[in-house]
Amino acid sequence: MAAVIEFIHTATLLHDDVVDESTLRRGRPTANARFGNPASVLIGDFLYSRAFQMMVEVQDMRIMEVLSNATNVIAEGEVLQLTHMHNADLSEAEYLQVIRSKTSKLFEASTQVAAILAKAPPALEAACVRCGQALGTAFQVIDDVLDYAGDAALLGKNLGDDLREGKCTLPLIAAMQSGSADEAATIRRAIEEGNTELLETVAAIVKRTGALDTAMRSAQAEVARAIEAAGHLAPSTYRDAILHLAEESLRRTS
Amino acid sequence: MAAVIEFIHTATLLHDDVVDESTLRRGRPTANARFGNPASVLIGDFLYSRAFQMMVEVQDMRIMEVLSNATNVIAEGEVLQLTHMHNADLSEAEYLQVIRSKTSKLFEASTQVAAILAKAPPALEAACVRCGQALGTAFQVIDDVLDYAGDAALLGKNLGDDLREGKCTLPLIAAMQSGSADEAATIRRAIEEGNTELLETVAAIVKRTGALDTAMRSAQAEVARAIEAAGHLAPSTYRDAILHLAEESLRRTS
Repeated sequence: MAAVIEFIHTATLLHDDVVDESTLRRGRPTANARFGNPASVLIGDFLYSRAFQMMVEVQDMRIMEVLSNATNVIAEGEVLQLTHMHNADLSEAEYLQVIRSKTSKLFEASTQVAAILAKAPPALEAACVRCGQALGTAFQVIDDVLDYAGDAALLGKNLGDDLREGKCTLPLIAAMQSGSADEAATIRRAIEEGNTELLETVAAIVKRTGALDTAMRSAQAEVARAIEAAGHLAPSTYRDAILHLAEESLRRTS
Repeated sequence: MAAVIEFIHTATLLHDDVVDESTLRRGRPTANARFGNPASVLIGDFLYSRAFQMMVEVQDMRIMEVLSNATNVIAEGEVLQLTHMHNADLSEAEYLQVIRSKTSKLFEASTQVAAILAKAPPALEAACVRCGQALGTAFQVIDDVLDYAGDAALLGKNLGDDLREGKCTLPLIAAMQSGSADEAATIRRAIEEGNTELLETVAAIVKRTGALDTAMRSAQAEVARAIEAAGHLAPSTYRDAILHLAEESLRRTS
């Protein structure tokens, strides 16, 4: 099942990089940059369908349900994000809906599938779902912070990719809320135009207004939710690993 | 299940048109031409995953197996086709392997799923599989013929798309086999360069050498196999419809 999750994840990355026209991921050229869109689209489809083939082998209808629902919610989240491109009026609630769909859902499905495989009782399965959802949300919020605060060399991807695509993420939403009218107007313009020439100005506003701290506090709250949920697991090296992951996710720089 | 098949089919068309950079399908602009690659890739993923969600609802593991295998074979066939782009040395056997995977497999899965739903005995299910495979192969061979012999207005797509992509299809394979050394060299060059300026010359060679007839005879043999296989079904309006479809497929001009 870990391989199934990894295949679904890789398939979404292959397609995302085509959709976002990204050229750099994990410090290396993206598949679309290296092999072209056709190979990225088709190998993504191959991995998706191979993941479904592999999950059928497990012969468990609940797992099929959880993973087919998750995959559909992820796709829906990606489409939702696409419809919000260059939308500077995105609310924090709408932002959360997008990232809960496109990112957290796969974390959530992973932890839920583990609970199903372990035949965990319903309350523990629900705790696993909450833990995965919170971890995934924290991961994405931090990812969005790093796009303005990170170091491209460490991060292994190009800074400003989000702005180029006109993605309205939490750091920008928070900066527009707490900045001056002029600052908010600059960010709005950058989102609406996907104007990367404004990247340095936008990053400076995001820092000055404390928007990165606001976003990081939101990530911390999610991590706290994840840690609370993981507390329902019996003590084990696996629980320790989850707790470690939750805490480390706040410190990551790449 | 018909909707599931249709969703999978539509998803493959959305992705194919991105991969092939096609601009016209069914006489109308393709989704990628109209809405861009991002929407086509993501809506394709949405339809794929929705199809899996819908098939899980049927709660039948054999159907899950058949359709997840079919989807994976289709993706594999698309990748295989991509690796054969501009390969003028493609053999008829390799060509058949590509079209059995990318096209016939979905026909085959459709007829097999119908047999499974109807709780048909194994021999009848096998006949349904043969019927679908043969119908699908005939369909694709005729599609490849129409790319050289069709009328763009009737066909609803651009002639010469296959040549532009350097696709070595049965009409070209047959023409290289029965044409003069010069004619074979011209076709080889057109495939290797994806040279659409040679389209009229290539189409003339294909016609002169009788390659279209050769390909149509191959399609006729597949239709005969489909009709033989359909003969195992009890007489009904559904069997009549399949037989009608098989015969009409040889006559289609669009």
